[in-house]
Amino acid sequence: MPEPVLEPIFHPRGIALVGVPSNDGVAGAGGGSSGFLASLIEQGFQEKGGLYPVNPKATEIRGLKCYPTLLDTPDPVDHVISLIPARAVPLLVDQAIQKKVKSIHFFTAGFSETGDPAMAKMEQEVIGKLKAAGIRAVGPNCMGLYVPSERIAFMGGFPKEPGNVMMISQSGANAGDVVHGLGRRGVRFSKVVSFGNGIDIRAHDLFDYAAADPQTEVITAYIEGVQDGRKMFEAVKAAARVKPVILLKGGLTSAGARAAHSHTGSLAGSIDIFEGMCRQTGAMRAETMDDLHDLVVAANTSVKRVQGRGVALIVGGGGFAVLSSDAIATAGLEVPPTPPETKQLLSEFIPVAGTSINNPIDTNMGTPEVALKTLRIVAAAPTNDVIIASPSLTPRSQPGDPKPSPEEREKQAQEQIQSVIETYTRTQDETGKPIVALVRDRGASLEVSDLFQQEAYRAGIATYPTVARAARAISFVLKWRERRAGLPAVI
Amino acid sequence: MPEPVLEPIFHPRGIALVGVPSNDGVAGAGGGSSGFLASLIEQGFQEKGGLYPVNPKATEIRGLKCYPTLLDTPDPVDHVISLIPARAVPLLVDQAIQKKVKSIHFFTAGFSETGDPAMAKMEQEVIGKLKAAGIRAVGPNCMGLYVPSERIAFMGGFPKEPGNVMMISQSGANAGDVVHGLGRRGVRFSKVVSFGNGIDIRAHDLFDYAAADPQTEVITAYIEGVQDGRKMFEAVKAAARVKPVILLKGGLTSAGARAAHSHTGSLAGSIDIFEGMCRQTGAMRAETMDDLHDLVVAANTSVKRVQGRGVALIVGGGGFAVLSSDAIATAGLEVPPTPPETKQLLSEFIPVAGTSINNPIDTNMGTPEVALKTLRIVAAAPTNDVIIASPSLTPRSQPGDPKPSPEEREKQAQEQIQSVIETYTRTQDETGKPIVALVRDRGASLEVSDLFQQEAYRAGIATYPTVARAARAISFVLKWRERRAGLPAVI
Repeated sequence: MPEPVLEPIFHPRGIALVGVPSNDGVAGAGGGSSGFLASLIEQGFQEKGGLYPVNPKATEIRGLKCYPTLLDTPDPVDHVISLIPARAVPLLVDQAIQKKVKSIHFFTAGFSETGDPAMAKMEQEVIGKLKAAGIRAVGPNCMGLYVPSERIAFMGGFPKEPGNVMMISQSGANAGDVVHGLGRRGVRFSKVVSFGNGIDIRAHDLFDYAAADPQTEVITAYIEGVQDGRKMFEAVKAAARVKPVILLKGGLTSAGARAAHSHTGSLAGSIDIFEGMCRQTGAMRAETMDDLHDLVVAANTSVKRVQGRGVALIVGGGGFAVLSSDAIATAGLEVPPTPPETKQLLSEFIPVAGTSINNPIDTNMGTPEVALKTLRIVAAAPTNDVIIASPSLTPRSQPGDPKPSPEEREKQAQEQIQSVIETYTRTQDETGKPIVALVRDRGASLEVSDLFQQEAYRAGIATYPTVARAARAISFVLKWRERRAGLPAVI
Repeated sequence: MPEPVLEPIFHPRGIALVGVPSNDGVAGAGGGSSGFLASLIEQGFQEKGGLYPVNPKATEIRGLKCYPTLLDTPDPVDHVISLIPARAVPLLVDQAIQKKVKSIHFFTAGFSETGDPAMAKMEQEVIGKLKAAGIRAVGPNCMGLYVPSERIAFMGGFPKEPGNVMMISQSGANAGDVVHGLGRRGVRFSKVVSFGNGIDIRAHDLFDYAAADPQTEVITAYIEGVQDGRKMFEAVKAAARVKPVILLKGGLTSAGARAAHSHTGSLAGSIDIFEGMCRQTGAMRAETMDDLHDLVVAANTSVKRVQGRGVALIVGGGGFAVLSSDAIATAGLEVPPTPPETKQLLSEFIPVAGTSINNPIDTNMGTPEVALKTLRIVAAAPTNDVIIASPSLTPRSQPGDPKPSPEEREKQAQEQIQSVIETYTRTQDETGKPIVALVRDRGASLEVSDLFQQEAYRAGIATYPTVARAARAISFVLKWRERRAGLPAVI
C-alpha cells in the first residue's frame, strides 16, 4: 500500500511557532493562542525534534531560544504553526516556501469566514501559492495536530500515550473536549486533527488518511459543513467499510446552522441528508457530543459485541433500579424478568429481604466470590444479552480494622479495582455476554473512578456515567449492526 | 392555622435506634442499615436530644451507651428507628406502645411487599396496634427522616444547614441522591421523608404537611405507586396552589413498573394518567431524575422568572457554541440573531477576529468590567429573554506573576467567584433578564466549581452542567407557567 498522501504532515522533524506570544501558556493572559508552545514542551517534542519559537520581540520563550523570523530558524523545519494576524500571513507564506516547509497550520483566523471580500481574495492567493509549492495547509481558524506518538499536542493535559482512535474535527474546542473527556475514560488517540475552515486539507482527505492509517482502528469526526459532498460521501463510505466510523454533525438546527456559519463559514445541510449519508455508508450517527464519546467507548470495548436487547441490571438502591429500568426501556431495550431456574440459583446465596432478584437485581454483590458467582449466573440466563452492573470501588473493611494510611488505601483501591475487572472479564470470556460498568458521578473518589475507568477500558470493559447513557450506547450499537448488514464486520 | 397533623414526628426529643449494628457506619461492613447512628451523630443530634442505641449484644456503640431493649432507654423517646428483622417487629411495637413513643420509622423491610401472606397479615396487625395507640409509622422499607433544623439525617454527608425544599420520596436511595446532588449545587432542605411502602404515612399526608409547613417553599417528590389516587390528587392540587410542586414518577415503562412492584409493592399507573394529574393540578412533571434536580434549582433561582424563548448564549469555543445552539433549539427555544444596534454596541469593545457577536456570542468576556458591559448590552436586547453564560472561574494572571501559594490561590478563586456573581446579579437586577451559569464538568477544580455553584445559588443564580440541561429547564419553566394559567403565581 502506498504511503497515504498526508503522512508527512504527521512526522515533522522541526516545528516553528511563528508569532508565539512571550507569555504562551499563562492561563487567562488573553489571546486564544496561549499554550501551543507549552503543550509541545509538555509532550516533550523538543527532546526529539527542533522546536523554534519565532517572535521578533523576544530572545527566549519558556527556556527555548526565540528567533526573529522563520528564516532565522535552524533547518529542518517541516511544520509551521501560524499564530500571527491574518494580514501578515502572505509574508509568512513566502518565507515558508523559501524555508521549504512541508505544512503550515493556521491557528490564525479572520480569513474568508469573516465575509470580508479582501480577506477572501487573500485566502485564494495564499492557497494558490501553497499548492504551487507543495505545502499542505491545516486550517485556518483551528487548533491543528495532536499526534501523541510524535509528541505533538495543541492543548495541555493531553495523554502522552498513543492509542487507536483518530478524530477529525472542524472545532478545536470540541476536539479538546473529546481528548480530555474520553481520555479520562481510558480512550487514547492515534491522531486528532482540528482542521477548521479547511482551505486545503478537508474532511474527506482526513477520512482517506484515517482509513489507510495503520495506527487508527476507530474513526470519529465532528463536522459542521461538508465542503465537497460527493468526495466526503465516498471517503466516509470507504472508511466505514474497513473501520468503525462515528460522526457528529453540528448545525443541524437552524440556530446551530447559523452558529456554524459564524464559526467556520460552513453552510449546514439538513438532518435528513446527514442521516441518509450515515445510513448509506454504514457510519454511526452520534446525535450529541455525549453520544460521540459513548460510541467511541462502545466501539473499543465488549459493548460492540452485544447481540440483543435483553439487559440484566445489577445495581443497589430500589428507587434507582426503578428509574434505571425506565431509562433502559426508553432507550428501546428490555429488562427481562429473571427466568425461574436463574432465580433458583441466585436465591441459594442472595438473601431475599431487602434485595430483589427479579431483574433489576438489587444487590451489592458483597465479596469478589459472590460477585463472580452472581455475574456468571446472570450472564448465563438466556434472556440476558448484556449486563449493566454497578461495581463497588470502595475497599471493604471490618469493624475494628485499623484506619489505613493513604498509601495503604490507594493500594486497597487498586486491588479492589483489579478484582472487579478480573471478575467482569472472566465472566465475559466464559459466557460471551458483554458487561458494562456504571461509574456514577462521585460514587467513589474521582481518582479511584478515573483509575477504574481507564483500567476497565484497557481490559475491554466499557464504563458509562448513567444507565441512560449505557442503554443508549447499547441501543445504538444494535442499530448500527442492523444498518451494516451486507458490509464487512468492523464492530 | 392549626399545627399540621404530622408536625410531632419532625421534632422528637429522643431517638432510639433498635437493632443498630455494633459496626454502624463502617463502609462495606454489609447490611444496609449501616450508618443511621453515625449520620445522627454527624448532625449532632446527641447534643440536643437523647440518642439511644438499642442492641442486647453491645454496651456501647460509637461512644454512646447501648441499651438491651427499648424499655431500658431513658425517657423521653419520641421516635424509634427500627433496624430489626420483620419477624421481631410485633414485639417492638408492643414495647413502643408501652414506652409511649410518638413515631416509628421502619427501615425494616420484608413486610407485605414480599408477597408472603403471613407477612401481610403481620403488617395489618402492626398497623392496627399503632393506630389504636396513636403512633405514626414511617415506612416500612425506607430511610426515614432528614430534618437538618432538628439535626436528624439518614445518610452521611448531608448538609447541616436547613433550607426551603421538602422532598417526599418513596425511595431512600433516590432521596439520598437528591440531597447529595442538589446539595452540591447549593440547594438546602426543610425536610426529606423517605416513606417507602407507606403503610401509615403516605404521599398525600406528606403533601398536606408540605403545603402547610412554613419552612417549606418548594416541594418535590419521587413516587412509585399512588396508594390513594383521589386523596393524592387533592393533596397535590392543594399544595400546587400555594407552592411550586415538582414530581417524578418511577415505573412509567413496563420494565420500570415491574421494578417498582419488586421495590415497594407499588402498582404503577400510566404516563398519561400521571401527566394528566400534573396538568390538572399545576404541578410540574420531571421526566428524569436530572429534570427533578434542574427544576428544583429553577424554582429557587431567577430561572423561574424567564418570560420567553429567546436565549442569548455567551460561551467560548466555536464548535461548542454550535452544538449548544443545536441543544437550545432541540429544547424548543430560540437563539435569536443579535439585533444590529446591539451588535454595534458590542463591536465597540469586542474584537471581531476569533470571536463572534452574532449569538452565540463567542467571547471569554475578559475583565469583570468587560463582562458587566457585555452582559448589560446583551440582556438589554429585546430579542433576548434569558442569558446562558459560561463564567470564567480561573483567576487571571499576568506573565511574570509569581506562582501563588495554595492559600492565595483559594483567595483569588473566591474573589473571582464573587466578582462573577456580582456581575450576574447586577445585570439581572438592572434588566430583569435571568442569567444562568454553565458550570461544565471539571472546567475548574471541583472545589472551585462546587463553591461557585453554592454561592451562585444563594444569590439566586442557577447553575447547570450542560447547555442542554439549562435549556430544558428553561423550556419546562415556560411550559409550567402556561399550564398554571388561572392558578396563583408561585413561580
